[in-house]
Amino acid sequence: MSERRRRGGGGRAARQAARTGAVSASAAPYVTRKVPCYEVLDAEGLEIIEHNAETVLEEIGIEFRDDAEALELWKDAGADVDGERVRIPRGLARKLIQDNAPSEFTQHARNPERSVVIGGANTVFVPGYGSPFVRDLDNGRRYATLEDFQNLVKLAYMSRSLHHSGGTICEPVDLPVNKRHLDMVYSHMRYSDKPFMGSVTAPERAEDTVEMAKILFGEDFVAENTVITSLINANSPMTFDDTMLGAAKVYARNNQACVVSPFILAGAMSPVTIAATLTQILAEAMAGMAFSQLVRPGAPVVFGTFASSMSMQSGAPTFGTPEPALVLYGAAQLARRLGVPFRSGGSLTASKIPDAQAAQESTNTIVATGLAGVNFCLHSAGWLEGGLAMGYEKFMIDADQLGMVQTFLSGIDLSENGQAMDALRETGPGKHFLGSNHTQRNFETAFYRSAIADNNSFEQWQSEGSLDTAQRANKQWKKKLSEYEPPEIDPGVDEALRDFVRKRKDAVPDSNV
Amino acid sequence: MSERRRRGGGGRAARQAARTGAVSASAAPYVTRKVPCYEVLDAEGLEIIEHNAETVLEEIGIEFRDDAEALELWKDAGADVDGERVRIPRGLARKLIQDNAPSEFTQHARNPERSVVIGGANTVFVPGYGSPFVRDLDNGRRYATLEDFQNLVKLAYMSRSLHHSGGTICEPVDLPVNKRHLDMVYSHMRYSDKPFMGSVTAPERAEDTVEMAKILFGEDFVAENTVITSLINANSPMTFDDTMLGAAKVYARNNQACVVSPFILAGAMSPVTIAATLTQILAEAMAGMAFSQLVRPGAPVVFGTFASSMSMQSGAPTFGTPEPALVLYGAAQLARRLGVPFRSGGSLTASKIPDAQAAQESTNTIVATGLAGVNFCLHSAGWLEGGLAMGYEKFMIDADQLGMVQTFLSGIDLSENGQAMDALRETGPGKHFLGSNHTQRNFETAFYRSAIADNNSFEQWQSEGSLDTAQRANKQWKKKLSEYEPPEIDPGVDEALRDFVRKRKDAVPDSNV
Repeated sequence: MSERRRRGGGGRAARQAARTGAVSASAAPYVTRKVPCYEVLDAEGLEIIEHNAETVLEEIGIEFRDDAEALELWKDAGADVDGERVRIPRGLARKLIQDNAPSEFTQHARNPERSVVIGGANTVFVPGYGSPFVRDLDNGRRYATLEDFQNLVKLAYMSRSLHHSGGTICEPVDLPVNKRHLDMVYSHMRYSDKPFMGSVTAPERAEDTVEMAKILFGEDFVAENTVITSLINANSPMTFDDTMLGAAKVYARNNQACVVSPFILAGAMSPVTIAATLTQILAEAMAGMAFSQLVRPGAPVVFGTFASSMSMQSGAPTFGTPEPALVLYGAAQLARRLGVPFRSGGSLTASKIPDAQAAQESTNTIVATGLAGVNFCLHSAGWLEGGLAMGYEKFMIDADQLGMVQTFLSGIDLSENGQAMDALRETGPGKHFLGSNHTQRNFETAFYRSAIADNNSFEQWQSEGSLDTAQRANKQWKKKLSEYEPPEIDPGVDEALRDFVRKRKDAVPDSNV
Repeated sequence: MSERRRRGGGGRAARQAARTGAVSASAAPYVTRKVPCYEVLDAEGLEIIEHNAETVLEEIGIEFRDDAEALELWKDAGADVDGERVRIPRGLARKLIQDNAPSEFTQHARNPERSVVIGGANTVFVPGYGSPFVRDLDNGRRYATLEDFQNLVKLAYMSRSLHHSGGTICEPVDLPVNKRHLDMVYSHMRYSDKPFMGSVTAPERAEDTVEMAKILFGEDFVAENTVITSLINANSPMTFDDTMLGAAKVYARNNQACVVSPFILAGAMSPVTIAATLTQILAEAMAGMAFSQLVRPGAPVVFGTFASSMSMQSGAPTFGTPEPALVLYGAAQLARRLGVPFRSGGSLTASKIPDAQAAQESTNTIVATGLAGVNFCLHSAGWLEGGLAMGYEKFMIDADQLGMVQTFLSGIDLSENGQAMDALRETGPGKHFLGSNHTQRNFETAFYRSAIADNNSFEQWQSEGSLDTAQRANKQWKKKLSEYEPPEIDPGVDEALRDFVRKRKDAVPDSNV
């Protein structure tokens, strides 16, 4: 199945590189897992949930709101359409996906060395998405601006652990709502050469994203390749609204990727149990992905889910707790059985500051992300306050943890050098291995090196100012930004992009809708 | 195998309960895993490491230092003893373990409802061990005292997430070295009714522990049951010293449990690779466990390992990094194949304070601990500074995380109530589940409730003083200690214990060796 459905990169990568003035990248462009996925459900459990999800699609149905075309497409496909409620015959959604959607696909970056393969044994770490606020130690919490947005694009560009530039890393609220997508997309294109995400807040903004991609990559290249991923959230429970459907149609028609994501606060937007939440997620994700295949068979899709659970005391969303981790593991298994790439996880936390709670919850989630086999991990770095704020220090702390996950996923080297029987024989009982030939040969690549952790003695740590993690991270992001150099770009392409942005801004008055 | 080798509790638990004045405990006494273990190595990889470990035992050998009796036992068993170097024929150590050691055993607590089963699908969380310093927000870092020790025993007693009272939770350095074990063992016995660990710093201190256990549990009961676990560290690489061998002999002869633990800083005390570190761990653990079976066949043993990796830049130990996690997962698999309980993991960190680094590293380790199937988890709560300090706030933060691990390990409920199709049918598209009958029936037990995490809005958090995790934990441990009530104990038993401690203290002058 996977060979037939794999969507390759095509031979244009080299020409593409020349065209956009790509710089070379030494870091691996994404993670390829060499250890097994962790699985919480056995085949019987998975079959129960799959059966129940089909029951949801067939008996309860999914609402496709304010989009007559969507209802028409479903009717033509054989669904029972009653008002805006679409009841999908058992097996139809799965068949539409399995017959058409690629099991993995390449998202091209303007620097071909940074193109990522989404699906299979690969994991792509993508920054946080959607925060109206930012926070740093110097200025505290404040509304995000375009300058913050660009800073975060630059930090993601410079991080070895982030493979993608992301989308709405933060909301530049200093710009009008109807125009800020132009500056965001341009910033991704200009200040990074990693792959990026497109606007989904209105169909015409999705169109703008595609047009700008055509300028950057060339029209022919975009027609044949995926250069944009987009985040299409379901309006859970069991509903898609016209904004998301409109954006999804634009991207699918242009053969660009939709990450169809039920966005669920369990207890409010799904039942209070893990199995039922998984059932609902599978039903919603299948409905959305199948819809994209009705729009354009073969358009790349990702089975996404964002799951948290609600505090039953306060109603607040919680993150990094055990139930969302179980949902994540289970959903990853369901996606693999469906044969599509999977998006979930991240460095999620409800904490307001980059403290122990933030690290504990984020680590709980990102470890599950790695072991579950997530292919596309949005919110990998920066998240605070359930996504309301992007933290500069948190961004650096998370990026360090991503490096640890990446190293873990590379597994255990069982080569002769890895077995190191020569070292054991050379050293023997009671001696130390520091000076052994094997250690000398290997010490430079041995063991993950954290950029932020302080492993020194108490006395040394104290003499260096008794800094906590956030204070060290504060120094680090400032140093990074001071060293930033933009990737090269063809000046003609850059001018064409700027020109497009200017014209689109001039065409309509500012609006905050 | 496991039935034949399982060591049961015997019928004396009820009498025992009456004797020691047990109080009832509502919390589950330990974790029983309902999800699979995560495994990083396949059968071929495991066989390579097992083969190499046998090569280490046969060709390089293990040193048993300053213990003529140990060498004699090995010679009689068929090993090649050359000076203090013991070369163990291929397969001999494994056979001694598999023919004799129990695959799981019960460690009895004086409150039978708190007895723990060590091995199988069970995980027992045990506090930190061995720190000379303590830290809290009010008084910073300072040498630990007996008062700190007792405070931590009380906090562990009151925590639902800790199943064991531990051993040297911190070193009461206000007491002479040759007598402090008496106060520590008494404190575990008096201020908690959970199981505890015995002294290993000298054979006579191990004897004191056994004598006190006989007073607490009755001589007959101790002769037939395991009531003490002890931490027997190898002096890696490939060495056991007379202190540890002496303590191991005392406990094994008395049928009490030895946790045989290679203590390895990879890069210094083992080669810089994961596979070679696993090889060395397996060889050392097998040698120590086989030795305990030579002392007394059938004595309960645990395959232990404590692994960190060295910073190749500074020489400092690092924790929570990917390589020790891979070692942990691999060693757990090796222990299962050997058929003995496994000890590793914990809430390990190199951080000096309970900040983001501390939480990140501890969470990385404790999640691996849970998923690997660790049976006995020392250092579950409190660790800072690579074990040099026990943090009061860190203790509470870790205990909360242990609760999350426990909930995760209980897996996904696939009952009809768990599937909750009634809730999905009742609510349907676009509605919320808060008021559904299913939610009303289940909300009290739905979702893990953190005692420390702040999930409230930014505004509410700010209005409550913008506290960080450590500040909230500070309030919590003080509240716990203020509410502490000791478990009941038979006054005659208590007096006999005090009398023993007094006599042993009076018998010799104070010494700090």
